[in-house]
Amino acid sequence: MAPAQDNDVVTAAVLVIGDEILSGRTKDRNIGYIADHCTAIGIQVREVRIVADDEGAIVAAVNALRARYDYVFTTGGIGPTHDDITADSIARAFGVSIDVDPRALALLAPYYERRGLELTPGRLRMARIPAGAELVENSISVAPGFMIGNVITLAGVPNVMQVMLDAVTPRLRTGKKMRSVAIDLQFPEGAIADLFGEHQKAYPAVPMGSYPTFRDNRPCTQLVLRSTDPDLLAEAVAGLKAKLTARGML
Amino acid sequence: MAPAQDNDVVTAAVLVIGDEILSGRTKDRNIGYIADHCTAIGIQVREVRIVADDEGAIVAAVNALRARYDYVFTTGGIGPTHDDITADSIARAFGVSIDVDPRALALLAPYYERRGLELTPGRLRMARIPAGAELVENSISVAPGFMIGNVITLAGVPNVMQVMLDAVTPRLRTGKKMRSVAIDLQFPEGAIADLFGEHQKAYPAVPMGSYPTFRDNRPCTQLVLRSTDPDLLAEAVAGLKAKLTARGML
Repeated sequence: MAPAQDNDVVTAAVLVIGDEILSGRTKDRNIGYIADHCTAIGIQVREVRIVADDEGAIVAAVNALRARYDYVFTTGGIGPTHDDITADSIARAFGVSIDVDPRALALLAPYYERRGLELTPGRLRMARIPAGAELVENSISVAPGFMIGNVITLAGVPNVMQVMLDAVTPRLRTGKKMRSVAIDLQFPEGAIADLFGEHQKAYPAVPMGSYPTFRDNRPCTQLVLRSTDPDLLAEAVAGLKAKLTARGML
Repeated sequence: MAPAQDNDVVTAAVLVIGDEILSGRTKDRNIGYIADHCTAIGIQVREVRIVADDEGAIVAAVNALRARYDYVFTTGGIGPTHDDITADSIARAFGVSIDVDPRALALLAPYYERRGLELTPGRLRMARIPAGAELVENSISVAPGFMIGNVITLAGVPNVMQVMLDAVTPRLRTGKKMRSVAIDLQFPEGAIADLFGEHQKAYPAVPMGSYPTFRDNRPCTQLVLRSTDPDLLAEAVAGLKAKLTARGML
């Protein structure tokens, strides 16, 4: 289970599982989605890893991340084919058994029966759930995800991952929401670096980031200030805007 | 330096550094690009991590990954602002000093002089390079990346990252190229899982993956077979196609 934490801060990691992401053949679309979702509900994603369809790599990553963060979201590797080894790897990471789960079978059997399809050994793989896990509903293609301890195992197909993430969200503990304010400048980063660094020192509890962009081929900058405290954030933003205005940059 | 390896296989990890990726505000576009590039030149990406702008997290990730893989590509955190701490963190990971590098300064000083811009402390930060590192040229915005040991530090802005990756590529050792063949089927994964699993057993040296997709709202499947040996790959593909054809699925 998750380590004891400051009640206001709930942390998470994302573990993407799949050879196809590492080879470049498939471009991940889940990391950014989960990051946005977690930020919106008050969970701070602190780390992401992508590993291959390799049991040793999955077990090592799951055990490293679940000890360090309140939640770990995994994506990928829970389908019917031999390369789908996530459920078995997570059972091994937790040191629990895994077998066809009667609750999962009760979802899958009628789904295939209605379609006149046989419940082959491959399809039966999708009902394998680690002992002690709770199912996570999949309203698109039935085969469930699951949650064991603080690890939430979701599908890799983005639309299926998304409905599973919605299904599990009410069960998650959340903290204060991280708020952020962005300030767009028509100047390159180098022009504001010193002023911005001084302002960060004045508000050490408000993380401030600077992100270079190009607009009409001109180097521009987006400054982002973040805090879970809306009043402190507003004060830090107002102070920065005053300094930028005094320099004629806003 | 990289551990001794089979000469035919060269491995890499990607380390993305940046709070803005973890919060979801910025969507990463570098992982997939580096993965494609490495696959094309004969380097196998085995792991990816995304960490915050946090020195402890960067140092731990760099040291874990550089011990395990032939190369580590980092992206992000080498600009002029206070949140750009990648170069200092990598110096700490390697236990070397870091200061303004005369070679980097020789690139930056005339660049700013030509534009009538002052070389502020912020801009000077971009000339900080760990002792013993080689520079990696940046043909877009001059401020260089660098390579120290087996770690290659690149910018986070995608077009700048890309020119740096091109610049460093001739210096990298590469292995046999991983080739892959995809077979698209108009059937869901469950329909071919057992046949496909048996075929994988017949060719254990050819990793085979199955990827569900939706086409016109119908569940379809892409099978991917991979090998560095073109003859073995062709044989495994031909054998699989014959089995699919015999079942009327191709």
